[in-house]
Amino acid sequence: MSSFVDKLKPSEPSGSAIIARERAQSDVSVDALSQTLFAGDDFLERQARILPIITAEPLFDKKQQANLSRPDLFKLALARAKVLRRLVDQHSWDITDYKLAETLVDDVSPYFLHMHMFVTAIREQASDEQQAHFLPLITAFKIIGAYAQTELGHVSNVQGIELQARWDPSTKEFTLHSPTLTACKWWNGSLGRTANYAIVVAQLFLPKMGMNTKDKPEYVSHGPHLFVVQVRDLKTHQPLDGVVIGDIGPKFGYDTIDNAYMLFDNFRIPHSALLCRYAKLDPNTGIYSKPAVPAVVYGTMTYVRSLIVHQSRLGLARAVTIAVRYTSIRQQFKDRDNINGVEQAVLDYPTGVYKDARKEIENGNFSPLASMHSMSSGLKSFSLGGHGYGGASGFTRLYSDYLSRVTVEGDNWMITQQVASYLIKRMGEAAAQGPGADASQLEIVNALNGGGHLQNFDILYSDVQIVDAFRRRASFLVYGVYVDRIVEKKPWTSLMIQLNKGLSNTAQSIAFVVEFFQESLSSHGHLSTTTQTVLRSLFRLFAYYHMESEGNDFIQSRAISQSQLDALPGRIQKLMAQIRPHAVKLVDSWMIPDYLLDSALGRYDGQVYEDLFKRAHRLNPLNKITFNPNYWEDEIVKGSKDGWSSILAKL
Amino acid sequence: MSSFVDKLKPSEPSGSAIIARERAQSDVSVDALSQTLFAGDDFLERQARILPIITAEPLFDKKQQANLSRPDLFKLALARAKVLRRLVDQHSWDITDYKLAETLVDDVSPYFLHMHMFVTAIREQASDEQQAHFLPLITAFKIIGAYAQTELGHVSNVQGIELQARWDPSTKEFTLHSPTLTACKWWNGSLGRTANYAIVVAQLFLPKMGMNTKDKPEYVSHGPHLFVVQVRDLKTHQPLDGVVIGDIGPKFGYDTIDNAYMLFDNFRIPHSALLCRYAKLDPNTGIYSKPAVPAVVYGTMTYVRSLIVHQSRLGLARAVTIAVRYTSIRQQFKDRDNINGVEQAVLDYPTGVYKDARKEIENGNFSPLASMHSMSSGLKSFSLGGHGYGGASGFTRLYSDYLSRVTVEGDNWMITQQVASYLIKRMGEAAAQGPGADASQLEIVNALNGGGHLQNFDILYSDVQIVDAFRRRASFLVYGVYVDRIVEKKPWTSLMIQLNKGLSNTAQSIAFVVEFFQESLSSHGHLSTTTQTVLRSLFRLFAYYHMESEGNDFIQSRAISQSQLDALPGRIQKLMAQIRPHAVKLVDSWMIPDYLLDSALGRYDGQVYEDLFKRAHRLNPLNKITFNPNYWEDEIVKGSKDGWSSILAKL
Repeated sequence: MSSFVDKLKPSEPSGSAIIARERAQSDVSVDALSQTLFAGDDFLERQARILPIITAEPLFDKKQQANLSRPDLFKLALARAKVLRRLVDQHSWDITDYKLAETLVDDVSPYFLHMHMFVTAIREQASDEQQAHFLPLITAFKIIGAYAQTELGHVSNVQGIELQARWDPSTKEFTLHSPTLTACKWWNGSLGRTANYAIVVAQLFLPKMGMNTKDKPEYVSHGPHLFVVQVRDLKTHQPLDGVVIGDIGPKFGYDTIDNAYMLFDNFRIPHSALLCRYAKLDPNTGIYSKPAVPAVVYGTMTYVRSLIVHQSRLGLARAVTIAVRYTSIRQQFKDRDNINGVEQAVLDYPTGVYKDARKEIENGNFSPLASMHSMSSGLKSFSLGGHGYGGASGFTRLYSDYLSRVTVEGDNWMITQQVASYLIKRMGEAAAQGPGADASQLEIVNALNGGGHLQNFDILYSDVQIVDAFRRRASFLVYGVYVDRIVEKKPWTSLMIQLNKGLSNTAQSIAFVVEFFQESLSSHGHLSTTTQTVLRSLFRLFAYYHMESEGNDFIQSRAISQSQLDALPGRIQKLMAQIRPHAVKLVDSWMIPDYLLDSALGRYDGQVYEDLFKRAHRLNPLNKITFNPNYWEDEIVKGSKDGWSSILAKL
Repeated sequence: MSSFVDKLKPSEPSGSAIIARERAQSDVSVDALSQTLFAGDDFLERQARILPIITAEPLFDKKQQANLSRPDLFKLALARAKVLRRLVDQHSWDITDYKLAETLVDDVSPYFLHMHMFVTAIREQASDEQQAHFLPLITAFKIIGAYAQTELGHVSNVQGIELQARWDPSTKEFTLHSPTLTACKWWNGSLGRTANYAIVVAQLFLPKMGMNTKDKPEYVSHGPHLFVVQVRDLKTHQPLDGVVIGDIGPKFGYDTIDNAYMLFDNFRIPHSALLCRYAKLDPNTGIYSKPAVPAVVYGTMTYVRSLIVHQSRLGLARAVTIAVRYTSIRQQFKDRDNINGVEQAVLDYPTGVYKDARKEIENGNFSPLASMHSMSSGLKSFSLGGHGYGGASGFTRLYSDYLSRVTVEGDNWMITQQVASYLIKRMGEAAAQGPGADASQLEIVNALNGGGHLQNFDILYSDVQIVDAFRRRASFLVYGVYVDRIVEKKPWTSLMIQLNKGLSNTAQSIAFVVEFFQESLSSHGHLSTTTQTVLRSLFRLFAYYHMESEGNDFIQSRAISQSQLDALPGRIQKLMAQIRPHAVKLVDSWMIPDYLLDSALGRYDGQVYEDLFKRAHRLNPLNKITFNPNYWEDEIVKGSKDGWSSILAKL
C-alpha cells in the first residue's frame, strides 16, 4: 500500500514540468534582476549566509506550528526568540542580520516591542542621563521593555487616555493610577507575559502652581507624557505590588505575541521615570516646562508605522510569488464552447481572453476592450480557488497576521486625518507662492486662479509625462481640500466626506510610487534588453492600471485627454501579454526561500500536488489518532477508554 | 489588589447605560417584530426550549475553545457531536430542533456531511432497494457517511475527475483506482477521521460493447457516477485494504471538521455500490442506460449550496448585531474643530455628518449630498477598529469559517456560468414570446426590438415601482448577454468578460430580494406604526443603496430618470437618520442569544469593557503561566527546569 502511494505521480503535465517550461520561455536573468532589486544592499549575500543557520535549528522548523495551541505557540515563540538572540552573540550579527533572521522565522517575536518601540522611545525621548542608564541594559537584554500607550477605551485618540501620573511634591514621586476600567492599558505587545519594564503613557497631573502645599493640592492635567516603569520583579517575574498585568487572550493573528492589559493601583514611581528629553519637571521647584512640539512624544508610533510599511512590502512579495507560481500550474477553467478541451492555466486566463478579444478587434469590434481590464482585476479575488484556503497555501498565517496591520498602531482614519492636515498645509505654502511649493502645486494654484493654462500630458508615449500626470492629479485633489478648508473655512467634519474617501492622500502616495518607479528605470542600463523592456512594461502597467481605475480624476485635473484614457484598457491588455511569459522569473527574482514561503502552492520547484499530499499524509498529527465515531459510546480516541473527560478538563 | 480590580468601572457613560438609552429612545416592539421576522415558524419557541438544554451541558462551553490545538478542537467537536446526537434521542428532537442546537453550538460537526450530503445523495440517487438498505443505518448512525467528489487536481470541473470505476464483467464488481496523485480525493468533509462510508464520484469505465470478453477488453468512460462505498472497518475504524485515507491538515477556518484525502489502489466494490436510481448497469448483460439528464448526479451539491445561503443569513445577522450594539457604545471619533469636545459614538457618525450637511443644504449648497453615501458605506470597513480583531469580538471564528464558504461546494466562477446559462435560456423563451416569459422580459425584448417604449418608473413615491425598476434592470442586463450569446453567437470565452463582472446574475438576485422584501411589507399590519415605518425605511434604504451604487444600469435600461437618481443620496441620508434611533432594537429583534454571539462587543447588556477585561484577566490560560524572559537561560516556563525540550517534542 505504501509503495502504491509512493509511486503515484500527478497527471501530466506536472507542476515541475510546467514551471520549468515557464522559466525556459523567458530570457530574463533572475540573478541580474535580483541584484538590481536589492541594489545598494547586501541583502542577498546576507540571506545566503543566514538561511542555513536558521534552517539547521530544529526549533525553527515550521511543519507543526499550525497544529499547536496558543499557549504552545507562545512557548515556541519565546524559545525561538531566545535562540535568535543567542545567534546574534554567536555570529556577531548586526541588527540587519537579526531582522532578516526574524523575517525568515516569521514569528512576531515576544521581544518585538523591546527591540523596536521600547529602545526607540528611550533613544528619542529619554535624557542623556536616562539613556546612559537604560541603553546598556536594553542592549544586553538585562531588562525587557514594552510600550504601553493604548487603553481599553482609547486606541486612536491619545489625548483621551485616562491613566493618571500625579506628581507628589512631598515624596518627589509620581503616583500611577487607573481611575476606571477603560483606563486599562490594552493591546500593548510584549507586555502581557514577557516584559519587565514598559514605557507607560499617562496624563501628567501637576498641582496648580501656587498651591504646591501638602494639603490636598488641586491638580491639572498637562496631557499625555511618557514614563519608563519597572512592572515586574526581575527575579520572580511576578508583577510588582500595585500592578495588574496579563495577556489579553487569543485574537485574529499574532498568536506569538503577548498583547497586554495593565492597571495601576496608586503605584509609586520615582521622578526619574519621566522621560525628560523634551518635557521637564524640576523635582525641587515643581516647575514644569512642556515640550516645544507636544506631538513629539508620539514619535515612536511613527517609527513602527514605517516598519509596518516595510514588512508589508515583503508580505506582498510573498503573496505574489505564491500566486504567480501556483496559477501558472493550476489548470482550472475550461472553454464552454469546447467542453472536451483542456483546462487553461489560471494565469493564462486574462491573456487568453485578450487573444479572443484581439480577433474581434481586428474584425472592427472594439467593445471587449473596455471591460477586459475590470475583468482581469476581478479575477484576483478567486483565482486561487479552494487550495488558497488550505493550511499548506502559505496564506493562512500571512493573511491573519497582515490583515490586522491595517489597524495596528493607530487606525487608518486617524492617520488619514493627520496626512490630510499636512497636505493642506503644504498646499497653503504653494498658494502663498512660498519657496517650499513644488511645480505641480504652483501650476494648479495658478491655473485654478485663472492665471495659467493646464495642458494634458502625453501618457502614451512619455514615461516622464506619466509621472507628471500623477503629480497633477494629486495636487488637484489636495487643492480641492485646501480650498474647502482654508479658503471657504468649512468645518472639519464636513470634510470627512472627502477625506474618508482618502482620495487626496492615496493620490499623493501613488504619485510618489510612480515617480520612484520611473526614476529607477534609468538605473537598469546593465540589464538585458528583455529585462529592461519588461520592467518598463511593469511600470506602465502599474501606472495605467491606477489611471484607468481613477480616470475621472485625471480628466478633471486635465492631466490626460479623454482619448488617451479610452486607449488605456487596450494598452493594459497588451502590457499584460508582454509581461505574461516572464511572470514566474519576475517573482523568482524576489529570491524568497521556500522556507520563508512555507507554501505547497508557491514552491520553487512546482511540486504543488506532491507537497500538498505529503503535508496531509505524512505530517498531519490528526492522522495519528484513530477516533471512535459511534455516538452511543463515550470513547473519543479509539482504545483510550477515556471518554471525554480529558477534553472536558481543558474547557 | 483583587478588590481594586473588582471595584473598577468603565468611564461614564457606561456601555450598559448607553444601550439602555438606545432601547428607551425607540418605541419599536422587539417582541412583535421578532414574531413577524420568524412568522410561519416556531423558531423562537424552539430556541427558548433548546437553549437551556445546550447551555447546561459543560462540553458546550465556548470559553476556552480558542485556546485549544487543532487536534483538541477536533476531539471536542466529536464529543459535542455525540452529545448532540444523544440529545436528539433523549428529547425526541426533530431535524429542525437538531439544526437549531447545532447552530447554537456553532461547531461545524464531524457528522455534518453524514447528516446532509450523504443522506441526501442516498435519497436522491439510490434505487428504492438501496434506500431500504441504507436509510435505516444512516438514521441510526450505525454507519457514518461522507461525500467524496472533488479531487486534488479537480475541484470545480466535475467532468475532469480522474478516479476510475472499472466494471469487471467476470466478477461483476467495479475496481476503484486512482491512476495519479491528482486523482486523490481532496477536501471531502467528515471523511478524514470520522466516516466509514462515502459516496464516491468516479468515472464509470465500461468495456466497449461487443468486446465483453475476459481478454483485456477495451474500456470507455461514461462520465462521473456515484458509488456508495465502505471505506473503513466498522470495528477497528481502520481504512480497508486498498484505501488510503486521512485528514488534509489545518486550514483557514473549519477546524472542527475533518476534510479528507482518499486514494484507491485497485479496490473492488460490488455491483450494488453504483447508485442506480437514474444510471443503470445490468450486471448480467453489461448493458448500460445513462441518466436522462446527466447533470442529475450532481444534485446533491445544490442542496448544500442552499444550506450555505441559509447559514450565511444567520451569520450576517450575528455580525450586524455585534456591529450595531458595539458601535452604539464605542466612542471613537472626535471633531477636529472641537478638539476638547467629546468623542462621538461610531454609529452616530454618518448621521452626524448628515446634520452638518443639512445645514449646508439649507444654505443652498447641495454638494455634500452626492458623496455622503459613499462615505457611509466606506466607513464600515474600519468602524469596528482594533477590538474587532480581538478574540472576544465574536468575529474571529465567524470570519474564518464564513470566508471560505465563497469557495466551498463549487467556486463562484463555475456557479456564475451555470446561472448565466439558465438566465440566457429563460430570455430565449421570452424572445420567442413563449408562455414562460415574465412581463419585464417581454417588455425589454419588445422595446429593444423597436416594438415598444420603456417608461421610467417612479421610485421616489412608489414601492411597487421600485421593484419594477429592479426587474427592468435585471432583464436589461440578461438581454444583453442573450443577444451576445444567442443572436450574435459570440464565443463563451469572450462573454466571460461580462459574466465575470457578474452583473446580470447579481442584478437578478437583488431583484428577487427587493421583490420579496416589498411583498413582506404588506403583511405587517399588526405591527405598530413606528415599526411599519422603520421597516419600510429599511426596504427603501436597501433598494436605494443598490440603485445608487449601480446607477448607470438603471439609467441605461431606462428604469429610472437621471433626476431621481440624483435625488438618491439625499434620500439615503434621510432614511439613515430615520432608522438610526431604532438600530439597537432592530438587531435585538433577531433574538440572537449571547451564547451564540460569544462576543464581548455584541453583548445584549452592553457590558463591553467589563467582559473584554474578564475574558483577559479571568479566563486566559496564558496568564496562568509565568515565563522566564532571559535569553541566556533555557527555561521557558519559570521554575519548570524544562528548557525547550517539551515544546521541541511537538514540532
